[in-house]
Amino acid sequence: MTRTAFFISDGTGITAETLGRSLLAQFENTDIRMVTKPYIDSTEKATALVKAIESAHANDGERPIIIDTIVDDDVRDIISGSSGFKVDIFSTFLKPLEEELDTHSSYSVGKTHSIGQDDVYMNRIDSVHFALDNDDGARTHQYDKADVILVGVSRCGKTPTSLYLALQFGIRAANYPLTEDDLDESGSLKMPASLAQYRHKLFGLTIDPRRLAAIRTERRPNSRYCSIDQCLQEVEQTEALFRRSKVPFIDTTRFSIEEISTRMIAETGLARRFSPR
Amino acid sequence: MTRTAFFISDGTGITAETLGRSLLAQFENTDIRMVTKPYIDSTEKATALVKAIESAHANDGERPIIIDTIVDDDVRDIISGSSGFKVDIFSTFLKPLEEELDTHSSYSVGKTHSIGQDDVYMNRIDSVHFALDNDDGARTHQYDKADVILVGVSRCGKTPTSLYLALQFGIRAANYPLTEDDLDESGSLKMPASLAQYRHKLFGLTIDPRRLAAIRTERRPNSRYCSIDQCLQEVEQTEALFRRSKVPFIDTTRFSIEEISTRMIAETGLARRFSPR
Repeated sequence: MTRTAFFISDGTGITAETLGRSLLAQFENTDIRMVTKPYIDSTEKATALVKAIESAHANDGERPIIIDTIVDDDVRDIISGSSGFKVDIFSTFLKPLEEELDTHSSYSVGKTHSIGQDDVYMNRIDSVHFALDNDDGARTHQYDKADVILVGVSRCGKTPTSLYLALQFGIRAANYPLTEDDLDESGSLKMPASLAQYRHKLFGLTIDPRRLAAIRTERRPNSRYCSIDQCLQEVEQTEALFRRSKVPFIDTTRFSIEEISTRMIAETGLARRFSPR
Repeated sequence: MTRTAFFISDGTGITAETLGRSLLAQFENTDIRMVTKPYIDSTEKATALVKAIESAHANDGERPIIIDTIVDDDVRDIISGSSGFKVDIFSTFLKPLEEELDTHSSYSVGKTHSIGQDDVYMNRIDSVHFALDNDDGARTHQYDKADVILVGVSRCGKTPTSLYLALQFGIRAANYPLTEDDLDESGSLKMPASLAQYRHKLFGLTIDPRRLAAIRTERRPNSRYCSIDQCLQEVEQTEALFRRSKVPFIDTTRFSIEEISTRMIAETGLARRFSPR
């Protein structure tokens, strides 16, 4: 039996969807089809959406779950007229917050709030370009401007993490791959010269060698690069270097990019330059 | 008078922070200092956090707002013992949802839910690498694999948007800059040959010429590239091309990257390959 959940907003839908997915993730044994409907900002769009809600109701044989952050009263009234089960975020929490803060919210006066551009925009874009320019050890002469330098073997998650840090938090993250070029005579990995003076900015990522081999196989099948022996050796040497050089590091194997990023921030105490809206 | 708001979670803190910022954005005239505290997953961390809450209370002279998604009972109890004003997301909404879905949630059985890695991970990473490989018109031979090709003048937001689409939605977005190289004899912009056969995948971004000049000035001050005349002309020709070739487009001037991305998806009906957690 499937239920449909609608995440409805007059804006991006990010808040309704984030909260909705988080709530529904607690019901692991229920089959829920999730649909996000952003920019429902007119009575026409609301009326069309109610039709989609009723149609899901008829198909599923159960009323849909509705999680919304609509501000406009006329649009709200139309959605409220549907047969769905409503989880109303704003009306549930804003009333008590208005009392606590002893003021009216823009919601209660019916004003739509756009997240819009603002003065952090440039900072955010600059951070994205910083991550791109300093990806994969391409350049090392801007490391004095980096907030953090992610280090680890090829394909352990450095690039997506550095981009996520830039987009979500405005953090300038360079990343540098540790490879066999950095082995010393005895065959153990040494700290690359370009990183040595920035040791306080380094943050290590490591990964389970089997997972690494699977990821690399997608990219370059049947290569030495993706062989389990090669992956085992690289990971072992990298972790040994992290320990020897006291570089803090986390194992990314079971983590999403969100988790890697937020854990790294929590561990290092790195300041955000920007906050997600 | 400043109030402090704490967004508290035993995970990334993304849900508590997203909802918290969204709720508090409705109180534009109240000065609120927002603090995210992720990974509060032990009684020791909870006890230390309560101290921080009480210290903010003493500093502000008003009790802090607490918005949390803590699952563990012992940790919750400690936080609940603080003097803060609590907005409890899970206990507010999960009870009615349990009744509606006629089942217990993992929350009510005290199970922490990790977002973790899953089978969409590869897809997401591939999309990020696709965006990087196909950034700024660098390559055009993979356009058959693109979900969308963003087009527009240099510095109108194409690169960060394509990366956001990849990270948040697993959408494969290439991007191609329209420049003077694509002017025809009469001085009007023509559709570049490499884009012509993918017209159905094109999505245009445009921007206010004054805003563009300001952004370009940051990058290359005192250049022709950043002059208002140059920006005016490029934007005018680009928008004329969009209209002539029936390329859907949006004006990014007042929009955040989240808004550009979600509006583009809403307008094109482009399917996500991945959903944010």
